[in-house]
Amino acid sequence: MENIINNIPVTKCEKSKISDVDFNNLAFGSVFSDHMLVCDYKNGAWETPKIVPYQPITLDPSAKIFHYGQSIFEGMKAYKDTNEDVWLFRPMDNCKRLNISAKRLAIPELPEAYFMEGLKALLKLDSNWIPTNSGGSLYIRPFIFASGNGFHASPANAYKFIIATAPSGAYFSGKVKVAIEEKYSRSANGGVGYAKAGGNYAGQFYPTQLAIQKGYNQVIWTDDNTHEYIEEAGAMNIFVRINDTLMTAPTSDRILDGITRKSIIEIAKAEGINVEVKKISVNEVVEAAKNGSLKEMFGSGTAAVVSPIAAFGYKGTDYDLPELENSYASLLKKRITDIQYNRTDDPFGWRVKV
Amino acid sequence: MENIINNIPVTKCEKSKISDVDFNNLAFGSVFSDHMLVCDYKNGAWETPKIVPYQPITLDPSAKIFHYGQSIFEGMKAYKDTNEDVWLFRPMDNCKRLNISAKRLAIPELPEAYFMEGLKALLKLDSNWIPTNSGGSLYIRPFIFASGNGFHASPANAYKFIIATAPSGAYFSGKVKVAIEEKYSRSANGGVGYAKAGGNYAGQFYPTQLAIQKGYNQVIWTDDNTHEYIEEAGAMNIFVRINDTLMTAPTSDRILDGITRKSIIEIAKAEGINVEVKKISVNEVVEAAKNGSLKEMFGSGTAAVVSPIAAFGYKGTDYDLPELENSYASLLKKRITDIQYNRTDDPFGWRVKV
Ligand SMILES: Cc1ncc(COP(=O)(O)O)c(C=O)c1O
Ligand SMILES: Cc1ncc(COP(=O)(O)O)c(C=O)c1O
Repeated sequence: MENIINNIPVTKCEKSKISDVDFNNLAFGSVFSDHMLVCDYKNGAWETPKIVPYQPITLDPSAKIFHYGQSIFEGMKAYKDTNEDVWLFRPMDNCKRLNISAKRLAIPELPEAYFMEGLKALLKLDSNWIPTNSGGSLYIRPFIFASGNGFHASPANAYKFIIATAPSGAYFSGKVKVAIEEKYSRSANGGVGYAKAGGNYAGQFYPTQLAIQKGYNQVIWTDDNTHEYIEEAGAMNIFVRINDTLMTAPTSDRILDGITRKSIIEIAKAEGINVEVKKISVNEVVEAAKNGSLKEMFGSGTAAVVSPIAAFGYKGTDYDLPELENSYASLLKKRITDIQYNRTDDPFGWRVKV
Repeated sequence: MENIINNIPVTKCEKSKISDVDFNNLAFGSVFSDHMLVCDYKNGAWETPKIVPYQPITLDPSAKIFHYGQSIFEGMKAYKDTNEDVWLFRPMDNCKRLNISAKRLAIPELPEAYFMEGLKALLKLDSNWIPTNSGGSLYIRPFIFASGNGFHASPANAYKFIIATAPSGAYFSGKVKVAIEEKYSRSANGGVGYAKAGGNYAGQFYPTQLAIQKGYNQVIWTDDNTHEYIEEAGAMNIFVRINDTLMTAPTSDRILDGITRKSIIEIAKAEGINVEVKKISVNEVVEAAKNGSLKEMFGSGTAAVVSPIAAFGYKGTDYDLPELENSYASLLKKRITDIQYNRTDDPFGWRVKV
């Protein structure tokens, strides 16, 4: 079956897999919807994207993705409101960030219309895959990787841009206990930390495993030079509340410019919360934990939304955070998800209808 | 056709592609021999490796290699002597380094016998692919990547180890002009720079492109914190000769422990050359270039062997290196390739017969 949605040619799958899916027991990103968007870069240009059934990819063993980690991705969600309308949250920011990552990884930038129109067409086609239960959403994974061949360590001459989607439940279940990293690092000054480059994630797995073995869920990365400043977590930016001031580290070439982070900053300011974007030293946080002025820490990210941190470990000591009645985390989470799921109006103009 | 070599089951290709190859005009790593070794990691264990025809790989779009850069590789060469005997150079060091990389990238370590016996079996089968013309060799690319599925940012549950080979000519043609990097970086303290992780290479492409646009061939990386110390190049360690002292930076968690580098150090010492392994500041090299005591710079690596540097650029100035009659580079290159191609005896015990 061939047709066209938003100018994108569509080949539909023969039989939907949706009846096999238990929407009440979704893990994160492990079940995939019926279709995907595919767009190839060849002979110096991105070709017209197309929608095809979700299907395997075949590559030569010399494809550069296998050897040189030339890949980037984005993470977004589609939300369904009670009228079955479908919404995206600041999608152009993901599109622009994908191209920021592309530039740093020497990947040709993608035309924005291919991203936006392709994504909307895909969501229209697979809209019944968007969960409607509380906290559920369709996780969207746009990614680009080097499909061109050859062992020479240089940029590929061919790439694939794909958008795949996965109906998903919560990323973290329960409270998060983090370890502040004292030895390993996520990124270098002048490196690729600000890009959503595949290699940034693989490098975090081993230190994270070590932290998990010690009873933590996640690592909070510190600067690679002194390990004295808090940067971000594996897939979340980090906020710290000392007394009534909410703080987060400035973005840099080492830290991802999270869309949730910048939205939380704006919402918090609109709520009258005192927000400071500044370097946060580990010592300052430890001192605040000791003297009782450390009220909250939480992570922010598309997958994790707003994730309260229950405790952090540093230099062999665990510091518990208090359980607050009216936490900033729960207020800000409510505000941002209300906008995302179209439960309130959207004073910032962030919601985009599909 | 099924048979067994070195305990490895072999499925031979139906028709060899070798007659299509022009062995006198080989680029680097762009033509692949008839067979490859494949070994899968599943259900918590590496399965028995097998040799199959060189063929495409099929993966789910959610395979973690596409998203999180979980991949590592090695680079080695097979050399044929005038008796048609086939030799490897310190292959156990590649095997051990692959497992060092594996550990840092949270990839399960590979049994050494699978690597060594698999490689030897593959070379026996495809030995007619090893070039015999001057400077030619069979470039060997062992690599492991995450083939397991899912968008969760955590280590995969399945991996593929592959060895593919490519008859190759020289990596660099002609003299190399390098730019000493002042802004971008290759690796962080506490990062993955010492591992041959795919992501380390993609991160170098953009800064290298910028250098190429300015007329250089390669970047020499400096430390990410101060950019004051010379570390290594994209796929080579770096040696600097000031007067009659040969210097190279110590390896660290940012710098690859190159097998060519450590062999060159030993050979140079055996030749009575004064070798210093120490931090090399850019200033020291610039000063030496200005006062005439900088005699040579060269890169060392499996692909590039010993590559003399003709000039380096730093802060907008290019510094030419003198053309020497009896350079350390040419002496050391002759010594190491004589061992590799079995043209002399091997006092260090580095050569391994296939
Ligand atoms: C390293 C890193 N930091 C922060 C975030 C949060 O960014 P965003 O809010 O745009 O999802 C992510 C991922 O999404 C990430 O991968
Ligand atoms: C980053 C880097 N440095 C140095 C080298 C040289 O190492 P070896 O001499 O083991 O080939 C390589 C690659 O081979 C490399 O990738």
